[in-house]
Amino acid sequence: MKDLFFPSSVVVIGVSPQRANLGKEIARNLLEFQYTGVIHLVGLDGGVFLGRVIHRSLEEVPDPVDLAIILTPASTIPGLLAQCAKKGIRRVIIESGGFGEFSSRGTDLGREIQDLARSHRIRFIGPNCIGLLNLSNGLATPFATMRNVFRKGTVGIIAQSGGVALTLVNMFDSARLGFSKFAAIGNKLDVDENDILEYYVQDPETQVICMYLESVNDGRRLTRIARESPKPIVVHKANIGPLSSSIAQSHTDALANDDQVVDAAFRQCGIVRFQDIHGYIDFVKVLQLPRMRGRNMAIISRSGGHAVMAADAAYTYGFDLPPFPESFLAEVSTHSRAKVIRLANPLDLGDLFDFDEYVRIVEQTLQEAAIDGILFLHTYFAAIEGEASRRLLQDVAGLSAKYDKPVATCVYTENFEISRLHKEFDFPIFNSPGRAVHALDTSIDYYRRREFIEAQKGSVGSGPAYDRSAVKSLLDQALGAGRSPLLHEALRVVEAAGIHVPPWQLIEDPSGISDGFDHFPGPYALKAVASALSHKSDAGGVVLGLPHAHAMRAACFAMREKLGQVQVTGYLVQEMATGGSSHFELIIGAKRDPHFGPVILLGHGGTLVEILGKSSLRVAPLSPAEADQMIDDLPGSAMFRGARGKPPVDRNALKDAILRIAALITEFPEIDQIEVNPLVVSESGAKAVDARVFL
Amino acid sequence: MKDLFFPSSVVVIGVSPQRANLGKEIARNLLEFQYTGVIHLVGLDGGVFLGRVIHRSLEEVPDPVDLAIILTPASTIPGLLAQCAKKGIRRVIIESGGFGEFSSRGTDLGREIQDLARSHRIRFIGPNCIGLLNLSNGLATPFATMRNVFRKGTVGIIAQSGGVALTLVNMFDSARLGFSKFAAIGNKLDVDENDILEYYVQDPETQVICMYLESVNDGRRLTRIARESPKPIVVHKANIGPLSSSIAQSHTDALANDDQVVDAAFRQCGIVRFQDIHGYIDFVKVLQLPRMRGRNMAIISRSGGHAVMAADAAYTYGFDLPPFPESFLAEVSTHSRAKVIRLANPLDLGDLFDFDEYVRIVEQTLQEAAIDGILFLHTYFAAIEGEASRRLLQDVAGLSAKYDKPVATCVYTENFEISRLHKEFDFPIFNSPGRAVHALDTSIDYYRRREFIEAQKGSVGSGPAYDRSAVKSLLDQALGAGRSPLLHEALRVVEAAGIHVPPWQLIEDPSGISDGFDHFPGPYALKAVASALSHKSDAGGVVLGLPHAHAMRAACFAMREKLGQVQVTGYLVQEMATGGSSHFELIIGAKRDPHFGPVILLGHGGTLVEILGKSSLRVAPLSPAEADQMIDDLPGSAMFRGARGKPPVDRNALKDAILRIAALITEFPEIDQIEVNPLVVSESGAKAVDARVFL
Repeated sequence: MKDLFFPSSVVVIGVSPQRANLGKEIARNLLEFQYTGVIHLVGLDGGVFLGRVIHRSLEEVPDPVDLAIILTPASTIPGLLAQCAKKGIRRVIIESGGFGEFSSRGTDLGREIQDLARSHRIRFIGPNCIGLLNLSNGLATPFATMRNVFRKGTVGIIAQSGGVALTLVNMFDSARLGFSKFAAIGNKLDVDENDILEYYVQDPETQVICMYLESVNDGRRLTRIARESPKPIVVHKANIGPLSSSIAQSHTDALANDDQVVDAAFRQCGIVRFQDIHGYIDFVKVLQLPRMRGRNMAIISRSGGHAVMAADAAYTYGFDLPPFPESFLAEVSTHSRAKVIRLANPLDLGDLFDFDEYVRIVEQTLQEAAIDGILFLHTYFAAIEGEASRRLLQDVAGLSAKYDKPVATCVYTENFEISRLHKEFDFPIFNSPGRAVHALDTSIDYYRRREFIEAQKGSVGSGPAYDRSAVKSLLDQALGAGRSPLLHEALRVVEAAGIHVPPWQLIEDPSGISDGFDHFPGPYALKAVASALSHKSDAGGVVLGLPHAHAMRAACFAMREKLGQVQVTGYLVQEMATGGSSHFELIIGAKRDPHFGPVILLGHGGTLVEILGKSSLRVAPLSPAEADQMIDDLPGSAMFRGARGKPPVDRNALKDAILRIAALITEFPEIDQIEVNPLVVSESGAKAVDARVFL
Repeated sequence: MKDLFFPSSVVVIGVSPQRANLGKEIARNLLEFQYTGVIHLVGLDGGVFLGRVIHRSLEEVPDPVDLAIILTPASTIPGLLAQCAKKGIRRVIIESGGFGEFSSRGTDLGREIQDLARSHRIRFIGPNCIGLLNLSNGLATPFATMRNVFRKGTVGIIAQSGGVALTLVNMFDSARLGFSKFAAIGNKLDVDENDILEYYVQDPETQVICMYLESVNDGRRLTRIARESPKPIVVHKANIGPLSSSIAQSHTDALANDDQVVDAAFRQCGIVRFQDIHGYIDFVKVLQLPRMRGRNMAIISRSGGHAVMAADAAYTYGFDLPPFPESFLAEVSTHSRAKVIRLANPLDLGDLFDFDEYVRIVEQTLQEAAIDGILFLHTYFAAIEGEASRRLLQDVAGLSAKYDKPVATCVYTENFEISRLHKEFDFPIFNSPGRAVHALDTSIDYYRRREFIEAQKGSVGSGPAYDRSAVKSLLDQALGAGRSPLLHEALRVVEAAGIHVPPWQLIEDPSGISDGFDHFPGPYALKAVASALSHKSDAGGVVLGLPHAHAMRAACFAMREKLGQVQVTGYLVQEMATGGSSHFELIIGAKRDPHFGPVILLGHGGTLVEILGKSSLRVAPLSPAEADQMIDDLPGSAMFRGARGKPPVDRNALKDAILRIAALITEFPEIDQIEVNPLVVSESGAKAVDARVFL
């Protein structure tokens, strides 16, 4: 990837002296950003542009070239790629549109250039993109007119949309955050976000990575890179609903992802997700501050009302406001003019008008060991206190660095003064206490998740031992029969995986049930085994609470009647899983996500499922600690600890069952989907009452 | 209240020639804002300030005065109020701090000035406030230094905090929204938000009312005024958590409210609540646009990526994006340069560079009957397309007004350009599609709620008929005994209110239970009746599922044993409420909120309550339609419509029970709290199984 960002010579293909030709804009941007390499131009009409000859073909370019930037009609791309190969060019940016985002013919064309590039060992960005901007060497490939006004910073940007990439650099620049490079990758038919990401993780000029994605193609690789990245990765993953999917498809040929899987996978690998650019920027601002190491916050505010708002925000995001020591408050109060302000945390500076005193208070607060960070609120009219306030803010910034604790500074003033602060300050300025506190909370969560990921290394996927060969032969048997396992076979798979199943027996001929049935004690559950029965309960294929063999036999015949045309393989008799006095019916499911691979779900079963839409989701394989987290994430999981005098459930058995299902889906690629529903969890263990396996 | 905002003469009391005297700032502000009335100054030291004599006492002021503005030490206020009365001044603003927000001595002083004012028929704002700013007559009473830079608009502001009031006017002004008046009311010992609100609702210069409150003292009056207000009322109610309460108390002497009650009451009376100033401002911006009358939105965007974000926002907030007619798209595509953009809604203007064409497309879209409003996204670099973009935005604004449909314009550009747009435009500009769409959604919700409130008028509180005198005598009986009703008495109250209760009988002496007990069929529930037993279930005072009289008797003795020292009045035998195949245990509770009066709650009972923290809350009395809404608001209420082949519950019976409990708490002030728990709701009705009444 470094070759893409640091070519020593480039050729822009598609430059014409014609008025509205976009290729010219690319050439102009390279000059505007003072690209440090050699620039060649190619265009069918020839001519001269900005003092450079426009060669009529790539062949005519005299010297070797590292990178070609192409903006010509889509149909010409295959031919041009061949010419690039001939010229020895191995890096290309294809900016032209008209591929999969436009028509199915375009999709075919896309496949053609993928094949061509592969055979010529060419790596390319695009098509349908604006390519790169590297502030280190002035490589600026967008066809949009730009000005070289950006300050170099440490944020690396990856965006699927060129428009959003430009918005991001604009906003990062306005907020004085700066950036190092951006890559706008469009349809990403070859180079994708993962390739760029991997490079940014290594790139010494990049410290924080920000992405805008409309689709994730290889989520597995993305999460792997993220897990290993010591640099924060922040992603705005858009295209979340059906309304967005068609525009995303027609814009960058992006297919929608399962948004819940995206959420779960990102959390698991330490990616911070945002749904809007403003939250994004606030978080990157916080990353510029020293790290907040705990949840003890001090609020210092010039206005009592703003202090109340800030305390509301602290409460909402779970921060503590420890009281200041008496001695400290006594010291502060000697400087208060009218002495009518009650001193506390939040500290209302009230009638204290001396800004130097503000600085001293901030410094004293930072010296307190009990305080992990400060939310500092300032409000002023620029015309009256502008200069003094800017000096104050500058001093506060210095103290934050000096004491290695964050001071999130939130300023209420006129809009034009806010933009002046953003322009002039290296130090981040926030617009509302709510947003600043949210960003601080996100940063604490981010660092905590990073530590968790580091601690998990090595224990992911080291699942419990079980009889792999038994599972294998059960699956092979069903595959041999050209179908998915039937109910009793699915139960055997789950049993072989080491999950407890209540005693059961398959009865092929109900008339053979003797009154002396004593394989296990009743009451019994009866379930029809039939491959055509996907919802056996709704179809009348389940009867519960049968007291004895006699009732069992009668129920079989009644069921046979009810199921009509359905071909029944047999009847499964099972001990009723009564659980204990704590009794919860849960669902453990696992499926293969097309982008993120095996995912595992824990949810409430029974009627609860209709109320508790939210379940707990993870990408498999899992570490035991992650299985623990899954349980905690489940809404209402506090009940598992025992409520109203009931004993706690056997949490280890539940955790173990989760890990075993995760192991099955991870280790047996032939399993497409597996579901234990319900898993009855009580104080005395976890039992799989019903199971389904789809191959 | 008008006298407060439009005095023809004022006196500022507490002006001293001394350097740092805040009284002088008040006088300066009156001049700065060109107050149209006569200004007098009073201060102990005398002297001259800004060409005006400082009188040594109020007596020395030669003419009659309408309004006194006082900023002197707290202890001097009672004396000054007496002087005001003597001088015939009936309106006062007390800006001094040092009252309830500072110390308990201050609280006493506050009570003293309340009494004094009442006896002299003086109405006053404050103490601990900055008072009023009226842009109509230049009445500017804050002691903070201000500049007269504000544009007059139609927003009326009420704020408990002076600092927040100043921030609000600053931000409204920056966003070019303008305001008409503000009132910063501090400790509101006399004039409170309701007084000002009532005036603003009448005030022809005010069209939208924005409030910042840290406490609501008379929520009942607030909601009554809001119900009647044709003008939108937007409230930032802060001080929501324990961290905030002490600072709010020390800042404006504000006591915390029950935040869930605030939420419910606001929704019910049409107040729009925000938790941050930015959301607030976005909403007021939307109110400046024509009203959006449906959920059909068109998204028109210069950048595909921004269109995707906008579509995400539309999806998140439940808007529809209907497709454009073919003919319309064909017309647009003839103007597209490279013809590589797929046309749809969202419309990606893509390679169309002619801004006049943008305007034409917006106009054509507004002409479509199927479209209720447009989200228009524009992105540009100010240095390159600033002028053309500003013209474009101006044209779009004109079209929105012309076609009486909202065009929410969202601009991504440099910060300084954004502030320029805010400064120069009358038309609101949004910063992100998410925030614009959220504000549009809030406005639709607001208008819908207003219509609902209008439609409900007359039907609120016309509850079902029931035996009021029976309830009254049951309550009187308990009151006579100096206690709250016991279990059986509470059940009788509920029965008298017309709510169905399963058959029951009170047994005082268990040994008298005959084996032939046949008052109603079993199985039976047995409950101990004892005034000292608040959680009878936990204490062993409840046994369920007793099959016959024999078991019942034995259970009584066992219970007597278990309850040890507890004095038992009797044993209540009840038919088990088995419900039907649909069976839900709910809680209906009602209590008296100290600020909002009787409130009524509907929640899930049993173990569900631990999972579903959220219940449905309303201020009583209720209309039948509001009771219906309560049911819909309950999480999981979709289950009531019948799930998995189960019949729907008897919704009318549930609604009726809610209305009857609401009637009880509204009509019997002696009831402090009442709870039916559980109310068993099934397809065959609603039964109160257990009830508690606290007097």
